[in-house]
Amino acid sequence: MKTLHVELGDRRYPIHIGPGLLGHAELLRPHIAGRQALVVSNTTVAPLYLEPVRAALDGLRHEAVILPDGEQYKTLETLNTVFTALLNHRFDRHCTVIALGGGVIGDLAGLAAACYQRGVPFIQIPTTLLAQVDSSVGGKTAVNHPLGKNMIGAFYQPQCVLADTDTLATLPDRELSAGLAEVIKYGLIRDLPFLEWLERHLEALLARDATALSEAIERSCRNKAEIVAADERETGERALLNLGHTFGHAIETGVGYGEWLHGEAVAAGTVMAADLSARLGWLSQECVERVYALLTRARLPLKPPPTLTSGDFLRLMAVDKKIKDGQLRLILLRALGQGVIACDVDARQLHETLDHALTHP
Amino acid sequence: MKTLHVELGDRRYPIHIGPGLLGHAELLRPHIAGRQALVVSNTTVAPLYLEPVRAALDGLRHEAVILPDGEQYKTLETLNTVFTALLNHRFDRHCTVIALGGGVIGDLAGLAAACYQRGVPFIQIPTTLLAQVDSSVGGKTAVNHPLGKNMIGAFYQPQCVLADTDTLATLPDRELSAGLAEVIKYGLIRDLPFLEWLERHLEALLARDATALSEAIERSCRNKAEIVAADERETGERALLNLGHTFGHAIETGVGYGEWLHGEAVAAGTVMAADLSARLGWLSQECVERVYALLTRARLPLKPPPTLTSGDFLRLMAVDKKIKDGQLRLILLRALGQGVIACDVDARQLHETLDHALTHP
Repeated sequence: MKTLHVELGDRRYPIHIGPGLLGHAELLRPHIAGRQALVVSNTTVAPLYLEPVRAALDGLRHEAVILPDGEQYKTLETLNTVFTALLNHRFDRHCTVIALGGGVIGDLAGLAAACYQRGVPFIQIPTTLLAQVDSSVGGKTAVNHPLGKNMIGAFYQPQCVLADTDTLATLPDRELSAGLAEVIKYGLIRDLPFLEWLERHLEALLARDATALSEAIERSCRNKAEIVAADERETGERALLNLGHTFGHAIETGVGYGEWLHGEAVAAGTVMAADLSARLGWLSQECVERVYALLTRARLPLKPPPTLTSGDFLRLMAVDKKIKDGQLRLILLRALGQGVIACDVDARQLHETLDHALTHP
Repeated sequence: MKTLHVELGDRRYPIHIGPGLLGHAELLRPHIAGRQALVVSNTTVAPLYLEPVRAALDGLRHEAVILPDGEQYKTLETLNTVFTALLNHRFDRHCTVIALGGGVIGDLAGLAAACYQRGVPFIQIPTTLLAQVDSSVGGKTAVNHPLGKNMIGAFYQPQCVLADTDTLATLPDRELSAGLAEVIKYGLIRDLPFLEWLERHLEALLARDATALSEAIERSCRNKAEIVAADERETGERALLNLGHTFGHAIETGVGYGEWLHGEAVAAGTVMAADLSARLGWLSQECVERVYALLTRARLPLKPPPTLTSGDFLRLMAVDKKIKDGQLRLILLRALGQGVIACDVDARQLHETLDHALTHP
């Protein structure tokens, strides 16, 4: 097991990474101060992993709420079912909410914890690669609104993150690939050696080689923890983590939540960001090809869905959280391993990127 | 105009109290960093005061969302209409949400600000006595759940509070009285000289004497600001502000949100707290009579509604936010001007208080 920390002063917390952590009471229990715990999971994950987690909670009052699986359920309405469960069980503000699942469960359970009785403690047990390398770390919680993804949320840090790599054994291939999109992101925005390592180990990751997966998770979490410690509330550097996300969120909202996996949308968005970076003269064609090649090997989509138009993108991106005074801010690449926040993107070049992406051969 | 501050380090903010503040652009504008403002108000307050506030926002992009009036609309569903308005107007995370109204509007707009794009700036312009002396100060935001009042919320501090005492001229008598319940609370829990001042000036307050009202608001806000600065997240002393509220919330939830005003329920709850304090030997019968007399003069109810039973109270109080490990914690009075958090209340004496309160002559 490896342990990293997110250094946030008196809200510092550990990320434990390794096999067999899920039912590990000694890792879990020190982070539960009260006598009540609600596990929030979904219909896919609960049958696989709920029992060991509940066993590790033996001696506490523990209950579970099992939500339907999918991004389309990351809504205010589903959030309310968690509040109803907490109130029906008469859980008080010393209870702990435990998210057991992927990014949707972590984001939603985290927001429930942030808002239940104005805030109760919260633990992340991510069971997908995407959640282990990205969404479970850093305290971003949210649900979607029909008009925009993750528009309703809070910054709310967990007490700890338990990333049990054994859970990746049951992960569908499509979800594994989706997680790799976020892994590759860290290499692209700030960690060239990691990008090169990924180019060497991508097949091992796809083959679910335990050592390779552990290393990828650890290096991703180390990048994430550093960024979050430096800029918890995204007033600057943290925005780099949104490489591909402005385009990606437009795809997810545009085709309907749950159609594309978040990581898939991020991959297509990353391609668009690389393309635009090349048009701005920042990225050589050779570098762009390296991005495409790596995402292709990871079995990720390089193109947005053909149903979306340029106009859809512009409309959907107009509510992006990085917008300031009507000005779109995009995360682009100055070079491989060097993300930048671009505030002054030329509209013509943005249109060229959209047109290029939407031209399906 | 008087100005107090809530001392919360780099989140320190002013409370301006006085006549004619509502359309005072110079007070408002320094607290608006971005270029967009959404005023959240209701169908009662907007016709009276929306225009001067919007005039003070001239030069910014300002929009308004007008909600129905009443505690029964302080729901997750109404909250979502605020998110929808923000998204329809394409407001970004540099926008400011301005609450213009009473406690319901302040609580709901505050939570909308806390959660929109994970937090946007927020300004309180309270237009009821209750909101000016209590709910607009201190950063408690919330909506109700059918199973419990204020169960979904956040601690989220405003940029400033503008308490325009002129707005009290249009306040219905019933709302004025409801506000006095929270004013009297400060005297009871920690400020005996203020309680004595209230005993001398209650008729002036009911007659809406401007000097008396200003002094009552200022002394209330001073008490509130001190408590919040010492214990923002209610880990201790701040709980004293809930005198009468555990019983009161049970009344509000029990009879249906919107039937009783919050301040009315707090008044009846304060009587129950005084009664229980007397049964515990803390408060003399003479002191209890002083509490009853003051609340009576303020035209507040002393008894809970006859439709509620002892069992209703026990069931509804079982989800109170001050509960820990199944143990009810009540705010009681050791003496006039001295509130205490009582963790070990004898069940028999609590039942006696409930039976006494529910016995209508």
